[in-house]
Amino acid sequence: MSKYDVIVLGSGPGGYVAAIRASQLGLKTAVIEKESLGGVCLNWGCIPTKALLKSAQVFDYLNHAEDYGLTVKGADKDFGKVIERSRGVANGMSKGVQFLMKKNKIDVIDGFGKLKPGKKVDVDGKEYTADHIIIATGARSRELPNLKQDGKKVIGYREAMSLDKQPKKMIVVGSGAIGVEFAHFYNAMGTEVTIVEFLPNLVPLEDEDVSKQFEKSFKKAGIKVMTNSSVEKVDTSGKTIKATVKTKKGEETLEADVVLSAVGIAANIENIGLEDVGIVTDKGKIMVNDYYQTNIPGYYAIGDAVPGQALAHVASAEGITCVEKISGMNVEPIDYGNIPGCTYATPEIASVGMTEKQAKEAGYELKIGKFPFSASGKASAAGTKDGFVKVIYDAKYGEWLGCHMIGAGVTDMIAEAVLGRKLETTGHEVLKAVHPHPTMSEAVMEATAAAYGEVIHL
Amino acid sequence: MSKYDVIVLGSGPGGYVAAIRASQLGLKTAVIEKESLGGVCLNWGCIPTKALLKSAQVFDYLNHAEDYGLTVKGADKDFGKVIERSRGVANGMSKGVQFLMKKNKIDVIDGFGKLKPGKKVDVDGKEYTADHIIIATGARSRELPNLKQDGKKVIGYREAMSLDKQPKKMIVVGSGAIGVEFAHFYNAMGTEVTIVEFLPNLVPLEDEDVSKQFEKSFKKAGIKVMTNSSVEKVDTSGKTIKATVKTKKGEETLEADVVLSAVGIAANIENIGLEDVGIVTDKGKIMVNDYYQTNIPGYYAIGDAVPGQALAHVASAEGITCVEKISGMNVEPIDYGNIPGCTYATPEIASVGMTEKQAKEAGYELKIGKFPFSASGKASAAGTKDGFVKVIYDAKYGEWLGCHMIGAGVTDMIAEAVLGRKLETTGHEVLKAVHPHPTMSEAVMEATAAAYGEVIHL
Repeated sequence: MSKYDVIVLGSGPGGYVAAIRASQLGLKTAVIEKESLGGVCLNWGCIPTKALLKSAQVFDYLNHAEDYGLTVKGADKDFGKVIERSRGVANGMSKGVQFLMKKNKIDVIDGFGKLKPGKKVDVDGKEYTADHIIIATGARSRELPNLKQDGKKVIGYREAMSLDKQPKKMIVVGSGAIGVEFAHFYNAMGTEVTIVEFLPNLVPLEDEDVSKQFEKSFKKAGIKVMTNSSVEKVDTSGKTIKATVKTKKGEETLEADVVLSAVGIAANIENIGLEDVGIVTDKGKIMVNDYYQTNIPGYYAIGDAVPGQALAHVASAEGITCVEKISGMNVEPIDYGNIPGCTYATPEIASVGMTEKQAKEAGYELKIGKFPFSASGKASAAGTKDGFVKVIYDAKYGEWLGCHMIGAGVTDMIAEAVLGRKLETTGHEVLKAVHPHPTMSEAVMEATAAAYGEVIHL
Repeated sequence: MSKYDVIVLGSGPGGYVAAIRASQLGLKTAVIEKESLGGVCLNWGCIPTKALLKSAQVFDYLNHAEDYGLTVKGADKDFGKVIERSRGVANGMSKGVQFLMKKNKIDVIDGFGKLKPGKKVDVDGKEYTADHIIIATGARSRELPNLKQDGKKVIGYREAMSLDKQPKKMIVVGSGAIGVEFAHFYNAMGTEVTIVEFLPNLVPLEDEDVSKQFEKSFKKAGIKVMTNSSVEKVDTSGKTIKATVKTKKGEETLEADVVLSAVGIAANIENIGLEDVGIVTDKGKIMVNDYYQTNIPGYYAIGDAVPGQALAHVASAEGITCVEKISGMNVEPIDYGNIPGCTYATPEIASVGMTEKQAKEAGYELKIGKFPFSASGKASAAGTKDGFVKVIYDAKYGEWLGCHMIGAGVTDMIAEAVLGRKLETTGHEVLKAVHPHPTMSEAVMEATAAAYGEVIHL
């Protein structure tokens, strides 16, 4: 029986990062993985989708070359090659994790791990033990009862990023990050896309202004948007799918080749031995404290398997925090109020902190500023004038309560707000931090100026 | 004789921004402009060059479409249209400034302003007076004695962005931001480009690692790089230009259609009446204190006309500071150690604070970390793996001394470092600010982790 300091169950961005940090801290570490190193994020999530979206972006440039003084006689996509590129990027990243495991002397155990009492894990009949066992089993596409995935006609994100043939018509159900990224990708590739959202707004977790701008852009791009709507049933018996959609105006029947179900995720907590060990779960998630300890000493859980935002960077941060605490470091709990969220459709969305609605509900008096990229010199030069930066400050102390961005490249711009908020900046300091000209990032400074009645370029 | 609270001489990003802020603060304001509103930055600098560079980027996508699973037939550029688009963007921005002037009730006086004693300005024979006169006359392309610009064969940045015909061969003299941006643009358009730099490194003000990486990228792109070299003379008498370049190995003669001189700028301080008023200058710049007051009360100077980095965002910040001080606000002087610099070639460069060499010379003990984009998931997905983020921390207190970035989109990423440094962050706080995944901005967190021996993805 092999004995470790730390065994991590699952090698996604929670698990493999926890394992590397554990190894850095001198702990003998193993990772158990049933499929591919890197988990969903690397293999079927964050990374391959970004590769697809890049192809979509370049295809868009090809189709609008004349806007930039360029000419193209015939532009086309090779759907198979676009998919192939994406798979190649994912495989490359997975090999990268393999290299990192080796470099950090982490044992990789292939197979399905099942927890046992007494700090043991069974992997397909072989037993391993460790002082600390971290559950990082991630999540999968959630299924709605009336939208069962068959993997062919009603699919989840996995199939959506590896279809053999490009569908002519697609219905996307759900408009969180996964739903809108695929809706954008397939629309850009030439598929006729309808997106159905149960709530009144697309990307319903974002600030309402962002949702509205996003819906405008989606419609302009030719995507059919149905909000306040739900798919009641799908008939997959014919050649094309017939989906019955309930809207505020009554029922509507849509035809499509494929329905993508993107209505959230479900944690992978079944059949991994939680009951045997006696680990407490609630609403499908494993219960943990600020340091990711479950109710059973020696067992920890991180990432999508625990409550909190189901995001790769959250999982990684949790993995590091969990392991640093195990190793006896003085660790601060993660501030879940300062986790950025990013959506990589066109336009991109990035946000952190409270929405205007949340801030109002929390009772703050607010200073709100908005700067549209249409007033930005860089955006004009780059031809990326859609979108804006919206900042929300507490009127009394100047605390930066929230930052909401929509537009080109904003997913790389939100880090400023994350760090600023972590450092408890005030609006005045953001305003007086000299942002370089001409950049999209000036919009953060200008939006802040707008909040304080000092905006220059509006 | 018209009387104002504030008259600004020049309407570039120093002048027009100062005027708007003055008007916001209730001061009756006029701007004097001899040419186009917005000055060099909007009309002949920052903005139109970014438009050209965007066309170059899209053209590059056209030429590498197959890397993204796409196909293109007959990709070509229409040089005239590329230039036309750039001029259109510049004109649009200039009209935007016109709108801002009107909206802020700022009088625009067309003509050449000349300072007079007694807080007066003469504009082509008409006299204006103000309690505060701000000199924001900017700068022009500097001329070397052995590289006189004739505007046809030996040109400056103005001509370079409005040539009628694309040159087949071009020599760029000087590798600051202006030089390398044009070298990149013309090379991307298909011109054969040689860049000549007197100092040992391209972009010589940057951290040496950045310069080296940049040179590698330039060479890979097919640009001929000559460092430690100087143009001794140019013979423009023939059909093609013959330039004699002195290198460490001896003299070399290059042929070209056009030589672009990009060896810095010279402040516009001639014939504007400085001597009449008695305003002190030194080394071609107007001498001012922390609040941009010259030695003569009531006369101020900002932007490229005064010492300090000759950058648009510096000029704007100076204009705001100058005017806020005039209006009696409690103003902090600008921290010139925290001004970001950006170069928009491919790869982009962005940096703030000390280079490694400067930090060592200042006697700091250092923690240095570097994270290459080749290890970034987002960069892999986007096909932008060239470059890195390098961070420099003081080992003792964790102060963020410098941040140096080279790669795609870094000009929008440097704001994080500017704000972090303004807020006196330590490395630990940057490390624990959860950066979103997958983004290029994670490289800032990872480089910081590398500095502290905690990097995950290397």
